[in-house]
Order: sequence, then C-alpha cells, then structure tokens
Amino acid sequence: MTAPLSHARSDPAGYPVVRLRPKANARAVRHGFPWVYANELVTDRRTKAIAPGAVAVLEDDARRPMGLVAVNNGSKIICRMLDTDPGAVIDAAWFAGRLHKALALRKRLYPDPYYRLVHAEADGLPGIVIDRFGDTCVVQPNAAWAEAHIDALVEALTEITGCTCVIKNAAGRTRSLEGLDDITAVLRGAAPDGPVPVPMNGATYMADLTGGQKTGLYYDQRPNHAFAAGLAKGARVLDVFSHVGGFSLSALAAGAVSALAVDGAAPALDLALAGAEATGVADRFATRQGDAFDVLAALGEEGAQFDLVICDPPAFAPARPALEAGLRAYERIARLAAPLVAENGILGLCSCSHAADLQAFRAASARGIGRAGRRGSLIYTGFAGPDHPQLPQLAESGYLKSVFFAL
Amino acid sequence: MTAPLSHARSDPAGYPVVRLRPKANARAVRHGFPWVYANELVTDRRTKAIAPGAVAVLEDDARRPMGLVAVNNGSKIICRMLDTDPGAVIDAAWFAGRLHKALALRKRLYPDPYYRLVHAEADGLPGIVIDRFGDTCVVQPNAAWAEAHIDALVEALTEITGCTCVIKNAAGRTRSLEGLDDITAVLRGAAPDGPVPVPMNGATYMADLTGGQKTGLYYDQRPNHAFAAGLAKGARVLDVFSHVGGFSLSALAAGAVSALAVDGAAPALDLALAGAEATGVADRFATRQGDAFDVLAALGEEGAQFDLVICDPPAFAPARPALEAGLRAYERIARLAAPLVAENGILGLCSCSHAADLQAFRAASARGIGRAGRRGSLIYTGFAGPDHPQLPQLAESGYLKSVFFAL
Repeated sequence: MTAPLSHARSDPAGYPVVRLRPKANARAVRHGFPWVYANELVTDRRTKAIAPGAVAVLEDDARRPMGLVAVNNGSKIICRMLDTDPGAVIDAAWFAGRLHKALALRKRLYPDPYYRLVHAEADGLPGIVIDRFGDTCVVQPNAAWAEAHIDALVEALTEITGCTCVIKNAAGRTRSLEGLDDITAVLRGAAPDGPVPVPMNGATYMADLTGGQKTGLYYDQRPNHAFAAGLAKGARVLDVFSHVGGFSLSALAAGAVSALAVDGAAPALDLALAGAEATGVADRFATRQGDAFDVLAALGEEGAQFDLVICDPPAFAPARPALEAGLRAYERIARLAAPLVAENGILGLCSCSHAADLQAFRAASARGIGRAGRRGSLIYTGFAGPDHPQLPQLAESGYLKSVFFAL
Repeated sequence: MTAPLSHARSDPAGYPVVRLRPKANARAVRHGFPWVYANELVTDRRTKAIAPGAVAVLEDDARRPMGLVAVNNGSKIICRMLDTDPGAVIDAAWFAGRLHKALALRKRLYPDPYYRLVHAEADGLPGIVIDRFGDTCVVQPNAAWAEAHIDALVEALTEITGCTCVIKNAAGRTRSLEGLDDITAVLRGAAPDGPVPVPMNGATYMADLTGGQKTGLYYDQRPNHAFAAGLAKGARVLDVFSHVGGFSLSALAAGAVSALAVDGAAPALDLALAGAEATGVADRFATRQGDAFDVLAALGEEGAQFDLVICDPPAFAPARPALEAGLRAYERIARLAAPLVAENGILGLCSCSHAADLQAFRAASARGIGRAGRRGSLIYTGFAGPDHPQLPQLAESGYLKSVFFAL
C-alpha cells in the first residue's frame, strides 16, 4: 500500500508524526488502551528527535492517523493518548474541555469543592493528578507532556474552577521515570497560610498542602472512612497508620466513644489533633506516636480492646519484587491487630500496594487473623472513591483495597 | 496407628462419627473451609445410614475429632461444618448463640430492624438464610440439616429477635440439590396482611413476604442503591429490571427530578408504585412494563436521554455452562443502555451471576459501552452489603457485582 505520506503531517498544529510497528496492538489502542510501549513504536531518527513531552500524531502501521499522543523517548511508556481526534490542538481551550468534564462528575458526586478533580488517564489527562481544596488546587504533573504544557493547564484550571491558588507538587515517584525534577512550586496566587480545613464525612480534616505527604490529604479513602464511620456509634476505635486522622475523625463525628490514632510521624498527628479540635471531638481523641508494629504489639501486651480497629499502612508491596515481603507484612499487621478487637468487633485492613491484588491481600489478611486464633467473616470490600475513576482497560491495577472483617 | 475407636462416640449428644479420607484437605477444614465434598469422606455402611441433615462428629483420617458437621449423603457437599467444638450440642441454645452474634453485627450496621439477619456459612449457620422485616423473619432453610432442626431454629429466632412472625420460604434453587421440597409455610404467628413497608436509604419499599420474588426484597443491593442515590440529585433516572423500585425510589428520595422503572413483572411494578406513594415521590415516578431488552431498544429509538441509567438484570450466567451466553447478554444490556445516557451521565450495571466474575463482567460491560460508540471510565465497584458477610475462603464466589461508569 502506498499511503499519502503528507497526510497526517498536514494537521493545523504542525505536530510531528510517529508510527506504530506492525506487531503493535493497534486494536487495543483503538478500543481505548491509553499507552504505547517503546517496543511498539517505530523509533527512527525523526521520532528520536522529538523533545520529551512534545505532542505528535500517532499513525498505525498502515499510516492511518489514530489520534494525538504525548511522546517521551526517555520513558517505557513512549506515547500517551491525548485525543482520538488527530486534528485536535493541545492548548488552554483543549485543557478547559477536559477539566469541564472532570468537574461535572465531581459536582455530581460532592456538595463541597474538596476532591480529586483529575485522576490522570481516566479523566483524559494522562499522568496528571489534581486535588482540589476549596480555592486551592494541587497539581501533580507526573508525565513530561504535563510539565511541558503546564502554563496552558494552569490557565484552563483557574478559568474552569475559579481557583485562586495553584500549587505544583513534584514529589511523585513516577516523575523521575519521566526525567522530571522534584521541585515543588506555587504557580498561581499565594499558598495557604498554614493547614487548610477540609470537610469530609462529617469531620473536618487539616491538610498541609505544601509540607505534607502527597497532596496533603488522602481523598481516595473517603468511601472506606464512611463505611467505618457507619460502624462507629458507641465504639472504641483504634486507627493505626492514622496520618491526619482519616478513620478516627470521621468515626468520632459519627459517635465513637473514643479514638486512638497511631502514626510514626509527629506532624501528621499534630494535624490530626488540630482536626479533632476543628471537628469538636478532641475530648474523645488521643494520639500515640511510634512505629505501628511496635505500638500494636505493646497494646496487645497491655490487653487493650477496641470495637473497631483499622490499619491503613503505606504500600508494603508497591511493585512486583516487593510482593512476597509485602504480603508477609500485611499478614503481620492482621496478626497483631486481631487480638485487639473485642468480641463481635470489626477489623478493617487497607492496602495501597499496586502489586498486591485484592485476592492476595485478602488472603494475607485472613491468614493473619487465623494466626491470631480468631475467625473473621468478610463484610466489606472497598476501593478508591469515585473521584478516582479508572479506565476499564487499566482497572486491574486499582491500587487501593480495603477489607473489613467481623470477628 | 490403632486409634481408640470409642473416642468420639462418647460425646454427650450421641452423634455418629464420620471420617475424612487420607487424601481429603483436612488442613483447609482446620483453617475454616466449611465444606467436605462427597469424595473426601469415608462413606462406609454406617455413614451411608446417616439420615439427611443429621449431625455427626467429623474426624480426620487419624481419627482426631475436628468438629460437628451436618451430613447429607444425597448432596455433593456431604458435610457442612457446624461447630469446631466436637462436644457441642445442636439445640435451641446453640442456635441462640449463633443468632446473638449475627444480630450484634446487624445492630451495629443498621438503626432499624430491616436486614439480612443470617447469611449462611459466614454467620455460622451453613445453608440458612434469614431476612428480617421488622417483627417478621423469612427463613430459607436451604440445607437438609436446617430443615431437620427447624423447630430449634425458630424457637431461638423468636427468643433472640423478639419477632412474632416466622415465614418459611422454600423457593430456593439449592433445596432440590439437598432433596428438600418447595412448600412455603408460616411457622409462627400470622403472616402480614399485605405488603410490608421497609425503610431503606431514605425511601420506603413495599415487600411482599409471601408472594414476591425471593424473600420479598433484595437487601443485598443496599450500598449500591445508596451510591446511585448519591448521584441522583437533579437527575433523570432510568431503572431497568427495577423489581419493586430498588434504584428508583432511593434516587427519588435523594432528589432525582424523575425516575422511570422498567420491569417485566406487573406485580413488582405495582409494589414499586405503592413504594413511591409511601416515600412521597409518586409525582416524579413512572413505570413501564415489558421485556427490558425491548424497552431499552424502544427508548433508544425514541431518543430518550437520562442522567443516570441503572440496569440490574436477573442472573444471566448463574452457572458455568451459561457463562458465554450470559456475558453476551450483559454486553447487550450495556450496548442498549449506553445510548440512553446523556453527556456527562452515569451508567450503572449489575450482575448477580455466580459464574461471571468481576473482571469478566466489567469487560463485557465496557465492550458493550464501546460498541455503542461511547467511552466510560469506571467510578465505582460495589458488592453485596455488609449484612451479607462471606467466609474469606469462599469470597471469590461473591455473586453480586455492581459497576458504575461515567460516560
């Protein structure tokens, strides 16, 4: 077949052209798979010359245009699909269209402007994460194209949301895979003077948008916090790996008689205490700083009992090589936590490990409960909230799982 | 090894003894797997003589007692573990202990006495399902032992719950596998005179406890109804395979501007209308009786548009042989429903098929959406509510899945 070579290159924005190899899975891309891997693309001299984060027209091996992609020769994910319309132009107006759709979903979900506004691929903005805290947005441009188009993105973001402050958080682990720096900056307006109060599940959390972990608050746990809060009336609650009090503050707001938050980070516990004050539940709230494994063991020796115990550790198995050790750590958490659960109490266990799938995590948790001499029945399986949408093609990689057992 | 033959037979209740074959998975049973299959048990003359539903002491192949089981020589599941204490006695007091624990969990979960009180194995009562509607309990004794011990069960049930009416529903498909009849009966008190109002998710549903499907209402969908209701404010809602209005009434109670319920069964739609009256939303509610596939196609031809469309069909793939045809039916539902979803609207799809796992169902749904020329991002994955607990060992067989897509 002799294809018109000039065809795709005649697009108005003058984007360069890249082409799939014959063996690439063009069908998957046509059906919505958002990535092209480096070994699927013809990487000739012209393609290699494309600057990291530049936009290009993607063609299949028969030179039929498939859409606009962001190219990064330095990444294993060499192309990220931006738009299935190869004639699109990636400018502020294009970003505004994407953000408008993302905002429409969140407005349907939540009455107040506190949510993950953009969750990367599933919101049509590959590699970009934006969390909103009222008038402030925290942007994570975790792909080279996002960094290259940050001005257009921020222009559209302030226009569509009316936000007055935009902070760039560059702490994401994936930025280094894209060849990006880790320099955080205020891109618009002035950063909030101190922690920001965030209303969620009946509680008020304090989020540190410039010094805290990730983007200051874990919005992803919202439905799981809500489920736990629904069990909390009259309960003694233990919240292990509490961060700023995610599970404890909503439980107290829902009527828990007491909550103890355990975390290794003193600044997180300070924010949890400030949140308890803001929620009006400080008189029922206590914190304990220390290594969570040590504190769980110590509470066991003290014979402490709680009606609701939740453990929400950091990712023990972020990637494949750490899987076995990670699952052993999850089992150990369950084994140490189960003895602290009173008769007819509930144990909630969370994993934010990509590598540990639901089945493996659930089995490790059940094993740990069994090793503690208890039996648990599974009453709830939860994932990240609906402001963290997923492409169905990538849904297996859903990182956050939450399983609750009645003991 | 010469074991003391008389050992287990000396138990106070005088239960007979059955024994695992050496190749049986005794370890799995010790770790909580609740069943023994027929080929795992020594089926000698004495075992074969055990009446269906009788209780026996289970021993491992070294004649160590493992617990009390219910035996049914006529079933593939020849033993169901009742109690890991081989010295237990299965009487009304024993049932009361199980029911007390089951009730404690539901009281923690829900303010009102409307829930699944017993969900079989995970509540320690293998094969027994009990739904509670205020002062009335509907019991499904789906295993021979439950039928054989129904008097003790009902005595404990009325004592623990204070319920004044107990209905036996014998319509369960699995009863015939256990050699049981399908005769429904009122075991205590008088059956309610007409449909019973059930408060759930802010709506009032009407449940027909003697003439309706299953036990009159699907409590399992409660969290998925709640999720949909959270999206419903200001929305036009389409509820396909509506039964008594599960998704539509909670959506209307949450502020939907309209809801249309579609079902093939006129009695179910009559109950939905009565529920809409009881909820005070009848002015925004409409019904359409007919084959759901036909009605979806007709609505497509009419160009009807909704902000929230939910399809909750009966099990298209209840068992393995029906899997492929079932998945095609789920795909077809998605393909017919997606065009009815307005821009930035939501499509919720449910499956109660044991054979179709989450991944297969989600993929079929996404395929159907794609065939309709739409793209969806997955915002929610839900299962049966927490009053439907599962043994972790059987969790893979969770039948109910609910996936919501933003289109």
